[in-house]
Amino acid sequence: MSDQAFLSWLHQAIPLTAAMQIDEIDYTGNQLQLSAPLEPNLNDKGTGFAGSIASIATLSGWCLLTLWLRERGIDADVMIAKSEQRYLAPVTDRLKAVATLPDDAVVEQFWQRFQEKLRARLPISVAVGNEQTVFELQGDYAAIQR
Amino acid sequence: MSDQAFLSWLHQAIPLTAAMQIDEIDYTGNQLQLSAPLEPNLNDKGTGFAGSIASIATLSGWCLLTLWLRERGIDADVMIAKSEQRYLAPVTDRLKAVATLPDDAVVEQFWQRFQEKLRARLPISVAVGNEQTVFELQGDYAAIQR
Repeated sequence: MSDQAFLSWLHQAIPLTAAMQIDEIDYTGNQLQLSAPLEPNLNDKGTGFAGSIASIATLSGWCLLTLWLRERGIDADVMIAKSEQRYLAPVTDRLKAVATLPDDAVVEQFWQRFQEKLRARLPISVAVGNEQTVFELQGDYAAIQR
Repeated sequence: MSDQAFLSWLHQAIPLTAAMQIDEIDYTGNQLQLSAPLEPNLNDKGTGFAGSIASIATLSGWCLLTLWLRERGIDADVMIAKSEQRYLAPVTDRLKAVATLPDDAVVEQFWQRFQEKLRARLPISVAVGNEQTVFELQGDYAAIQR
């Protein structure tokens, strides 16, 4: 499935992603970027709505782990278990969220455990911003073999 | 402004709240509840989308502090500064988020500081769920006098 086909599927399967007008996805193997125009994601102050920021950040980590597992032939249920979020500055431009896998050793540990137990958790960090990071999320994502 | 007028204003000022179809608000003075139907907030598994859950929870804390300050004649910019979130179980019914003020002593400290410095931070906890809590958020909200 191409990135564009995955994005179309997202819009259909998760209606809020269509409402947020998430229109760009880029998966590189260890990072995944989602972006959306500011307008449907505005707050009352004319900057990015905290709910939209939390949402696109949470989703980018989910997409990263989902696509990483699919590359390995695994169709798993991926769920966020917990997260910590810091709002550093207002979002004044497109919402751009970049999710990044942890160090190779942590990914390897996750992958070993997943193959053994058919379920495992992976920490993923997400940054939102353009030139500067204006929001950070640290999330724990659980994957469970279907 | 009545709760209903505030909800109409929200839908206009923050388009994602209309997309999420947030259709109930109830402010009691120390708690605020928001709720929305599940359908526009579904994920690919037919349960509540994590982004919608994070969003309605974040917003309920914001509404609570905004309305609490307005009751005291204060029109402040309220922003979430950071949060911790735990996803405990899937959401299978309406999304219902209840934000609760901390203990009186903490609220009093916030209020003293706000009046003195014209800015202060308040911790607010939010629970999402119906009979049982399926999601928890602990947020720090900043209020700054306009």
